[in-house]
Amino acid sequence: MRLAIDAMGNDRGPRPIVEGVKSFLEADRESKVILVGDRDKLEEELALAAVSDSKRYEIVHASQTVEMHEKVGALREKRDSSIMRLVELVKGGGADAMVALGNTAAAVGAASMVLRTLRDVHRPGIAVPMPTVVPDRPCVTIDMGANTAPKAQHLVDYGVMASIYCEKVLHISNPRVGLLNVGAERGKGNTMLREAYEALQSSSVNFIGNAEGGDIFNGTCDVVVCDGFAGNVILKASEELASAIMGFVKDAANSSPMAKLGALLMKPSLKGLKKQISYETYGGAPLLGINGICIIGHGRSSPFAVYNALRVAKECVTVGINKLIHEHIFKIDSTAGDSVEQD
Amino acid sequence: MRLAIDAMGNDRGPRPIVEGVKSFLEADRESKVILVGDRDKLEEELALAAVSDSKRYEIVHASQTVEMHEKVGALREKRDSSIMRLVELVKGGGADAMVALGNTAAAVGAASMVLRTLRDVHRPGIAVPMPTVVPDRPCVTIDMGANTAPKAQHLVDYGVMASIYCEKVLHISNPRVGLLNVGAERGKGNTMLREAYEALQSSSVNFIGNAEGGDIFNGTCDVVVCDGFAGNVILKASEELASAIMGFVKDAANSSPMAKLGALLMKPSLKGLKKQISYETYGGAPLLGINGICIIGHGRSSPFAVYNALRVAKECVTVGINKLIHEHIFKIDSTAGDSVEQD
Repeated sequence: MRLAIDAMGNDRGPRPIVEGVKSFLEADRESKVILVGDRDKLEEELALAAVSDSKRYEIVHASQTVEMHEKVGALREKRDSSIMRLVELVKGGGADAMVALGNTAAAVGAASMVLRTLRDVHRPGIAVPMPTVVPDRPCVTIDMGANTAPKAQHLVDYGVMASIYCEKVLHISNPRVGLLNVGAERGKGNTMLREAYEALQSSSVNFIGNAEGGDIFNGTCDVVVCDGFAGNVILKASEELASAIMGFVKDAANSSPMAKLGALLMKPSLKGLKKQISYETYGGAPLLGINGICIIGHGRSSPFAVYNALRVAKECVTVGINKLIHEHIFKIDSTAGDSVEQD
Repeated sequence: MRLAIDAMGNDRGPRPIVEGVKSFLEADRESKVILVGDRDKLEEELALAAVSDSKRYEIVHASQTVEMHEKVGALREKRDSSIMRLVELVKGGGADAMVALGNTAAAVGAASMVLRTLRDVHRPGIAVPMPTVVPDRPCVTIDMGANTAPKAQHLVDYGVMASIYCEKVLHISNPRVGLLNVGAERGKGNTMLREAYEALQSSSVNFIGNAEGGDIFNGTCDVVVCDGFAGNVILKASEELASAIMGFVKDAANSSPMAKLGALLMKPSLKGLKKQISYETYGGAPLLGINGICIIGHGRSSPFAVYNALRVAKECVTVGINKLIHEHIFKIDSTAGDSVEQD
C-alpha cells in the first residue's frame, strides 16, 4: 500500500510530518509512504530524523506550496504545488490514498477538481470524529467546512457516508445519526433543514431526529450532520475552548505550592484526559464523497496526529470505503428509482 | 427599582429561583423583586426559603406556564402564562426590567410581540457573555438564537448594541468587534456575510474583521457577531464540551488514591476554574434591541445564576442601556441620512 502525504502544508514545517511518517513506518511494516514536497528539504529532514530504510519511503518533488492564507484560486497558478502533486498521484494510481495537511480549502478544491466526487454524490464533506463523554466513542460530525451552503440532499449523503465510515472504520454498529438544529423538535430550522429531516427519516440511516450543539459531545449521537458553516465554527470554537480549559487547569496546577504537589499526584490521570479530548487521537478527517481516499489533517499537526492520519488513510483503503459508499448510495438511488447505472 | 422574574420557567422548578431572589435581596438593599407565577406554590417556596421581608418582594399570579418543549404559538393560547404576565408588567410600567428563564423562544416571542423592538432596530438579538482565556474579560457573542436567518443590517445592529453593552455594563472600553465566519480573510462567507463585513467596516463600531469560531474564546474579540443558528449551536456545544471536560477532570481525580489526594490539594485552585468557565458567572443574557429590559436566563438556572441575572437586569436599568442604544442607532441613521425622527 502506498500512502502519499503533503509534507509541506504544515504550519510547523516538514519536521513533525517526517517524524510522524517515521513512527508510522515503524509501526506498520507493510505500507510505503510518499512524501510530496521540496526534495532537498525533505532529504535533509529524513536524514535528521534518521529514517534509514529508504525502500519504505519515496519523495515526489513539488517546487511550490499553497500557503495557509491563500485562496483556492491559487491552485490554478501553482500547478507544481505539493497539494496538486498529491491529488495527481492518487488520480494516476501512484498512491492508494492521500493525507493533506495545511490549507483545507485548497485540499478540498484540489481533490474536487482533479479526483471529482463519487458517482451520485454531489458534494464532498469533511467528517471529523469529535471526542464525546463516552471514552473511545467519537461522534463523527460532517460537514466541517467543505460545503457552507448545502442542499438537503447533500446532508442526506453526508449521513449515509458518515454512517458507513462509522461502521467500517470506527467499528460503531448501527450508528445513530442526528441533524444539527436549534431545537430537538421536528419542524425546527429553515426549509432546507426541514427537507433534510424528512429525507433522512425516509433514508436508510438510523436517523434519531434533530440534534442540538451539545449532542455532539454528550454521547447521544454517533453521527451529527450539519452545514459546513456551522460545522466549521463549532470545530474551531471547540478546539479553542478545550485548549483554554486545559490552560486553566495548568494555571490552577501552578497557582500554589500545594496545588503543584496535587497536580504532580494527579499527573498520570490527567495525561489520559489530554488524550481523551484531543483531536489528534482520532487522526485526520476523511473528505467523504471524493473519488479517491483523501484524509484532511490539521494545519498544526504534531507527529502523533500525522501518524494517526496515515493510520486512518490506511484503514480507509483496507476496508474499501469508497466502494462501500458507492454501492450503498447506488442501491438507495436504484431503489428510489431516480438513477440509472452509467459507466 | 422593580425587577420582575419568571418564577415558573426553570427546568428545576421554582426553588432555585426563590433562593436566587433571596440572595439578590440580601445583597441589594434597594431593589424590589416581583415573582411571576403560581401564587400558592411561590408563597410556599418563599416560606421554605425563609424570605422574611415581605416588602421587598411581590407575587404576581399567573395560572399557566409555557413549558420548555412548547412552541412560540403556545403564547397565543396561554395569555395567563408567567412569561406573558412578565412582558405585560414591563409594558405597563409595573416593572423596570424582566428576567425570563426557561423556554427562550417563548421569551423572545413574548418580548417581541408585546414590547416590540427599539425604534430603528429591526430584530432583537440574544447577547451571551462567553468566558475567554482572559480572566474577567468575557466575549459578548450575539445572536445566540433569536434570529436564525438575519440580514446584514441585523448583524450591524447587533455589533452596535453589543458594543454599547460591553462599554456600559461590562466596562470594556472600545470593544473589538469580530464577524463570525469560516476564515479570517475579507471576502469569506456568503453574500449576506460579505455585506455585513462592509457595513460593519463603515459603521461606528471598532470592527476588527472576520472572526473564526476559536476567536470567541481566545481573547482577540470583545464582541462576536453571528447569525442565531451558528450562535445557538456554538453556545450549546460549548456548554456541553466544558461540562464534559469538567467531568473528565472529576473522573481523573477519582481514578486512583494518589489522584484523589492530588485533587484534594488542588481543590482550592480548581474551584476558581469552575467559576471561570461557567455561564453562571456573567449572569443572564440581555435580549438587546427590545423596547424594555429583558434578560434571558438559562433553563437550568442555579440560585447563583438567578442572582446574577437579576444583578445584570439592574445594571441595565441603572445605565439606561436602551436609551444609549436608541441614541446611538438614531445618530448613525441620522448621519447616514436614511431616517427622520418619529416619536
